[in-house]
Amino acid sequence: MMNVGIIGAGRIGKVHCESIMRYVKGATVKAIADPFLKEDTVEWAKGLGVKEFFTDYKKILADKDIQAVLICSSTDTHSPISIEALKAGKHVFCEKPIDHDINKILEVKEEIKKHPDLKYQVGFNRRFDHNFRAAREAVKSGKIGDLNVLKVCSRDPGAPPVSYIKVSGGIFLDMTIHDFDMIRFMSGSEVEEVFAYGGVLVDPAIGEAGDIDTAVITMKLKNGALAVIDNCRRASYGYDQRVEAFGSLGQVAISNDTDSNAVISNADGVHAEKPLLFFLERYMQAYVNEISEFVDCVNNDKPVPVDVDCGLQAVVIGLAAKKSLLEGRPVKLSEIL
Amino acid sequence: MMNVGIIGAGRIGKVHCESIMRYVKGATVKAIADPFLKEDTVEWAKGLGVKEFFTDYKKILADKDIQAVLICSSTDTHSPISIEALKAGKHVFCEKPIDHDINKILEVKEEIKKHPDLKYQVGFNRRFDHNFRAAREAVKSGKIGDLNVLKVCSRDPGAPPVSYIKVSGGIFLDMTIHDFDMIRFMSGSEVEEVFAYGGVLVDPAIGEAGDIDTAVITMKLKNGALAVIDNCRRASYGYDQRVEAFGSLGQVAISNDTDSNAVISNADGVHAEKPLLFFLERYMQAYVNEISEFVDCVNNDKPVPVDVDCGLQAVVIGLAAKKSLLEGRPVKLSEIL
Amino acid sequence: MMNVGIIGAGRIGKVHCESIMRYVKGATVKAIADPFLKEDTVEWAKGLGVKEFFTDYKKILADKDIQAVLICSSTDTHSPISIEALKAGKHVFCEKPIDHDINKILEVKEEIKKHPDLKYQVGFNRRFDHNFRAAREAVKSGKIGDLNVLKVCSRDPGAPPVSYIKVSGGIFLDMTIHDFDMIRFMSGSEVEEVFAYGGVLVDPAIGEAGDIDTAVITMKLKNGALAVIDNCRRASYGYDQRVEAFGSLGQVAISNDTDSNAVISNADGVHAEKPLLFFLERYMQAYVNEISEFVDCVNNDKPVPVDVDCGLQAVVIGLAAKKSLLEGRPVKLSEIL
Amino acid sequence: MMNVGIIGAGRIGKVHCESIMRYVKGATVKAIADPFLKEDTVEWAKGLGVKEFFTDYKKILADKDIQAVLICSSTDTHSPISIEALKAGKHVFCEKPIDHDINKILEVKEEIKKHPDLKYQVGFNRRFDHNFRAAREAVKSGKIGDLNVLKVCSRDPGAPPVSYIKVSGGIFLDMTIHDFDMIRFMSGSEVEEVFAYGGVLVDPAIGEAGDIDTAVITMKLKNGALAVIDNCRRASYGYDQRVEAFGSLGQVAISNDTDSNAVISNADGVHAEKPLLFFLERYMQAYVNEISEFVDCVNNDKPVPVDVDCGLQAVVIGLAAKKSLLEGRPVKLSEIL
Repeated sequence: MMNVGIIGAGRIGKVHCESIMRYVKGATVKAIADPFLKEDTVEWAKGLGVKEFFTDYKKILADKDIQAVLICSSTDTHSPISIEALKAGKHVFCEKPIDHDINKILEVKEEIKKHPDLKYQVGFNRRFDHNFRAAREAVKSGKIGDLNVLKVCSRDPGAPPVSYIKVSGGIFLDMTIHDFDMIRFMSGSEVEEVFAYGGVLVDPAIGEAGDIDTAVITMKLKNGALAVIDNCRRASYGYDQRVEAFGSLGQVAISNDTDSNAVISNADGVHAEKPLLFFLERYMQAYVNEISEFVDCVNNDKPVPVDVDCGLQAVVIGLAAKKSLLEGRPVKLSEIL
Repeated sequence: MMNVGIIGAGRIGKVHCESIMRYVKGATVKAIADPFLKEDTVEWAKGLGVKEFFTDYKKILADKDIQAVLICSSTDTHSPISIEALKAGKHVFCEKPIDHDINKILEVKEEIKKHPDLKYQVGFNRRFDHNFRAAREAVKSGKIGDLNVLKVCSRDPGAPPVSYIKVSGGIFLDMTIHDFDMIRFMSGSEVEEVFAYGGVLVDPAIGEAGDIDTAVITMKLKNGALAVIDNCRRASYGYDQRVEAFGSLGQVAISNDTDSNAVISNADGVHAEKPLLFFLERYMQAYVNEISEFVDCVNNDKPVPVDVDCGLQAVVIGLAAKKSLLEGRPVKLSEIL
Repeated sequence: MMNVGIIGAGRIGKVHCESIMRYVKGATVKAIADPFLKEDTVEWAKGLGVKEFFTDYKKILADKDIQAVLICSSTDTHSPISIEALKAGKHVFCEKPIDHDINKILEVKEEIKKHPDLKYQVGFNRRFDHNFRAAREAVKSGKIGDLNVLKVCSRDPGAPPVSYIKVSGGIFLDMTIHDFDMIRFMSGSEVEEVFAYGGVLVDPAIGEAGDIDTAVITMKLKNGALAVIDNCRRASYGYDQRVEAFGSLGQVAISNDTDSNAVISNADGVHAEKPLLFFLERYMQAYVNEISEFVDCVNNDKPVPVDVDCGLQAVVIGLAAKKSLLEGRPVKLSEIL
Repeated sequence: MMNVGIIGAGRIGKVHCESIMRYVKGATVKAIADPFLKEDTVEWAKGLGVKEFFTDYKKILADKDIQAVLICSSTDTHSPISIEALKAGKHVFCEKPIDHDINKILEVKEEIKKHPDLKYQVGFNRRFDHNFRAAREAVKSGKIGDLNVLKVCSRDPGAPPVSYIKVSGGIFLDMTIHDFDMIRFMSGSEVEEVFAYGGVLVDPAIGEAGDIDTAVITMKLKNGALAVIDNCRRASYGYDQRVEAFGSLGQVAISNDTDSNAVISNADGVHAEKPLLFFLERYMQAYVNEISEFVDCVNNDKPVPVDVDCGLQAVVIGLAAKKSLLEGRPVKLSEIL
């Protein structure tokens, strides 16, 4: 039984805590650390069986009975805590993005190299979703032949507050980063070049904050395939998360999940349900799966399914997209790293 | 080029006239006869190229240049005109039902036997619909293995006037007759026994007229399979025409057609179009197909796709269903014929 | 925190044990009793946190710290243990069917009346499935108007061993019983009369064992609606569980769930996944839901969602169907009870 | 009754001839001209009722009884014959593209201005397809709010011969030109800027011929929306023609048509049919509709649904895309015209 410490008890930290305590075999949460730990969070976690609570995450790093940490704190702390945790001999599961600054990610990567016995996994949950997995499996198994065109559609049900937008790193590093990872995951290829179009079509305040809310990003992949992502911060019908992979032998497409598949036919038409509301609804099982695999990798010394390079490349593509939008031209990834 | 005479210029007579003049190769409508022929019908038919118009159908039977007649007059005239037409040496396409009285159908059958050189086809248009054909093909080709359960759902968008109901012969001979034929067509088997439940759920006036408006009819087929039809005179969402055939190796199902496949997702859900409104919309191409095949059978001396026995059996099943509903017990077809 | 004792540690007992220990708030499994308790079951249950294990269920009934029991033992023991448990002051969750003998169910019902403070819930899990619930909600809320025709399709992926068939009580009490309950659940109405057709189309050995493997059962409901169930012990494509409820204002239909919604288009066609394999896959969340609601009813003194009358009526309909099949005529429920 | 002359009796000329003679009210084909007129084409057209046949199209222009011409000859002759026909006082329906050279289209446009009484329609058939129309109607009516992102997927079942590719003007002017028109049709907006990625993923011979076979083209529209087209010369599953329009209030999506909607479920999965094979299958009714509307515009003096500017703009966008691909940068339409 592996003891886990969770650093950061915000929304995603709680998701992982509940996953481990309820659904993940071979691991338990021994301690939670959060500088702003709330009383009701402690009560809730105790109900799940968590025993220790700290405001200082260093207490977790110092606990020799804890083998692994989950870094769920604010983005700017991901890379320094990653390095500290590795130095303290802990396996690490780090939420995305590792950092907005490539150099800091490279520092983490350097540290990882010094600890070949420690696992380091990055939190791209979407890779563990049943639909995305099925699509990836279809591509990987050769069912659609050589990949020609890869399309990712990713829309949120509504824009976050402008205060969040301002510190988010911009739509490409905050939202599209998952889609960039999907491009790599689905294609099994690196990206060579990116071109981005963006617009402020949802809320002028987002534009005033220096960001965009709608984007279409095209890419050339190293395997020759072309890819396109379209994003919007607001879809009236809910969280829209789809992929189409088209190849020489066919196409695989995945669509959204719903609460039920009930279809009502009446004088107005034929009506089905909207997609599940947002990521917590859509990806709850994916969160369980990703932590389960992390625990399995640690316990059974397997390679992690999402390594530091995944975390690095998604940011590199994001920065290239940012540069493309700013300069109005296609940008090669080699210009970034 | 075969010359055709159309007897009865009501709705269905016009459908066949337009089909032949526009879409059917190898035939032309030489004459139309209708005792209540209207001026605008004549104008309309002239526009299509029809030259001769009569109130007396015997003029058509007497025309030696006419090789085939389409009997589209009122139901009670189908069987006598069929016999007359055969005696006059005409090929016959007769709208369903041939008659509500089995003995009259048997008389027609006797007459047909005397003219082995003449074709006699019955107007079960649904057999020529692209969806029903695809389902039949799946069953016939063995794709679903041995047939186990056959289900037909057939609902009209709205009930006809009670005045029509009163002379219709009842729901089983008027509406379900098409579904009974579908059971035979899909299964390739005769029916052995029928049990019918019915209700007056749409309009009490239909009940007062001595009929029902909603029915569920189950059947044992001679090949061992079980079948069920459900009918209703009114579906708020339009004409509902579906089949499911389930067998040892799988199932084939067909659904309704729509004007377009546009799907709109919004804050209320995901919305598709209603089925095509009614039989003229849904089966227009099927009407063209059935007449094309009739013409082809005549011109090239092939066996007709829907023979007098199809017309006979559908009525026999309908009468058995009627008896079952009346007596509250399953009725074997052998009790009817 | 309510302490629960599980009587019978077979497949379904284990499902409930895991549900309670992992997902159900407000309850824990204190003890498991099974006359043939296996070592690996004990190990597995200990891993979930269960502490006590007995071969004699009376030990559970004698434990004053246990407030509720789950009766998951063989069918013939359901009714006597139900009565014993109620006499011992336990709330009871009893797997379906309570008994094949109506008199024994009535005895249980009598005992329940003597304990107005105790809850008694019957295990019709399908009522707690997200799809069936959505369909029921559409009917109940009036979205489809007055119910006219209710259709349930229920097919298993494969027939159980003939040894099981022989002691199963026959298809109507073993398999269709869930569908009979669905008719009551969906319609909110009692059944008045039943007519059943059956066949041996899957395996002659089932016929030799005195049972059928394929059935179409029609019903008249007390609210005037008509209903039909079609069953088969084997569907090549997996567990087929669907409902269509048609009413004066429209129709609601539910279909099967799949592992993913991936659709592959290739030179052979457009391909989606098969339904989830069987009831453990399809209804796992429904099992969690039903136990959660039971626990909530006990802890918060609410009426149970599936009471003894549900258990009774489903068996009454099943016996009527059996009689109908045997005697080849429609059977009123009043002939049975 | 308007008399029409068809110039060019290739595949598309024949499609229009059959449409007019069979389905279009208010027009008849009086003459066909083609320098390489074949005997079997003449036979076929005579069967439809066409009386006159020439090798020289000037004979049609000289016929005062002919009010309109359909220019279905090779692309390089479209613009000169357009001008000649207008000068001869004929209404013109011209197949797309009017020309690959913008100046020649502008010359045609100048000539049109001199004949305000003559109609000039361009052959973008896809605007008359039931699905595309339904999507356009959803956008135009405001059902999806303000347009944010427009996506067009357009794939052919197989690449044409390299000999054709060489004289086609390249994929953007030959194939994507329809999709560029769809962007304008769906959005009701002009395009501002284009960026194109392309690849040779289907057949190296296409690359050797100087063309690409796979493309992803993104656009900024003047109304602020973003758009993307993805093209491929070969889809193993057939002709893939889809649109998604996403806006502030929702999304409308259209998919492909099939021969039937039969769905077969078996041990391998759940299988539907492939899309209709190619444009003649998918757009036959659209061809009828476009000619019907042209005839209606001429006969009733209405503005044409697809004017010379539609023909012009699609080529301008195509040339911008070509330039973008060549120069590896986004190209504004103002750079082209």
